Amino acid sequence: MESHRLVQQLSFLREIDRLKSVVRQSPLLDRSRKENSAEHSWHLALYAWVLEEHAAAHVDVGRVVKMLLLHDIVEVDAGDTPIHGVLDGSQEAREKLAADRFFGLLPAGQGEQLQNLWGEFEAGETGDAQFAKALDRFQPLLINVFTDGGTWAESGVQYQQVLERYGPVIERGAPALWLVARDWVASHFGRAVSQAQCKVDNDDGK
Amino acid sequence: MESHRLVQQLSFLREIDRLKSVVRQSPLLDRSRKENSAEHSWHLALYAWVLEEHAAAHVDVGRVVKMLLLHDIVEVDAGDTPIHGVLDGSQEAREKLAADRFFGLLPAGQGEQLQNLWGEFEAGETGDAQFAKALDRFQPLLINVFTDGGTWAESGVQYQQVLERYGPVIERGAPALWLVARDWVASHFGRAVSQAQCKVDNDDGK
Repeated sequence: MESHRLVQQLSFLREIDRLKSVVRQSPLLDRSRKENSAEHSWHLALYAWVLEEHAAAHVDVGRVVKMLLLHDIVEVDAGDTPIHGVLDGSQEAREKLAADRFFGLLPAGQGEQLQNLWGEFEAGETGDAQFAKALDRFQPLLINVFTDGGTWAESGVQYQQVLERYGPVIERGAPALWLVARDWVASHFGRAVSQAQCKVDNDDGK
Repeated sequence: MESHRLVQQLSFLREIDRLKSVVRQSPLLDRSRKENSAEHSWHLALYAWVLEEHAAAHVDVGRVVKMLLLHDIVEVDAGDTPIHGVLDGSQEAREKLAADRFFGLLPAGQGEQLQNLWGEFEAGETGDAQFAKALDRFQPLLINVFTDGGTWAESGVQYQQVLERYGPVIERGAPALWLVARDWVASHFGRAVSQAQCKVDNDDGK
């Protein structure tokens, strides 16, 4: 009864179930456990939809939502890349292999369509991708602020590191969100906002 | 720094974090634990995107994706409604109250837009809603088939009950998926497919 296309599509949909078992560093807001990458992706898709008006440029929010729904599925094979962890040079290669495998499960044209959108997110060059990437930084920052430090407290991350690791990406894709985030971060670390902004501006070479 | 609109939007996005703690009856495919409603919603959004071509009628898949992203958020207040559980008559009223509260957190126009889409899903009258509802039945059915019975085994659900509880909704919104699901179910319960179809057809009064 199943057409070959449908067999392929259902195989892909079954395979990505494993994203629900990829555990991120960030906790839930109630701190009951760590967040997983599937529910993180759900949340980000809603961030995109609800916060569309705060994008740096006009975005096609439907594309951004789709991008965020699949932006992490390579983690099923390649694992999560914590923002405060030590980067392994082979992570990018592992993710590329994972993408080829996952999207290769789908019918050819459809697989390419999804893989191109994933690649666009990874490259971060289009307005849609930059907004998506801004949200992917903003959401864990919000979690940390509202869980008394979250992964910053766990990893001993300092004020300046937060500004450097989150600021440029959020500001590029959603400047209004960075204004808010910058205030939160300054308040969290007991700093004055104006100093925070000066430091980011200096580090950006502005 | 935060505009009033943005304060409202962030309040909504923080509040729905709790959907990650609403546990459903269905297990993950690897049976390691039960699925939660946030990751279920993520998965369904991808089902819609990938399986769009199997909808009964032409659908606006962007709308269907959005519908599925928010279709369960009322469960944060109202709880999950298991398909095989005993229905409480006040569940619908609780969900309506929850919807008013959740969508009321957003700026007025935006809250109405989201609530209307949620209401459209609940009513199940449009082609978009019927496809969304078909997927919301098909995904847990797939899980049960691929976990050796899942919630059917747990709740002692029989062949005929599965046909009645899943068949009409899936067939209405995505007939090609029901053809597959019907085969799976018949095979799971050790029945011949032709008998299965005859019984469903009879029950539908065809």
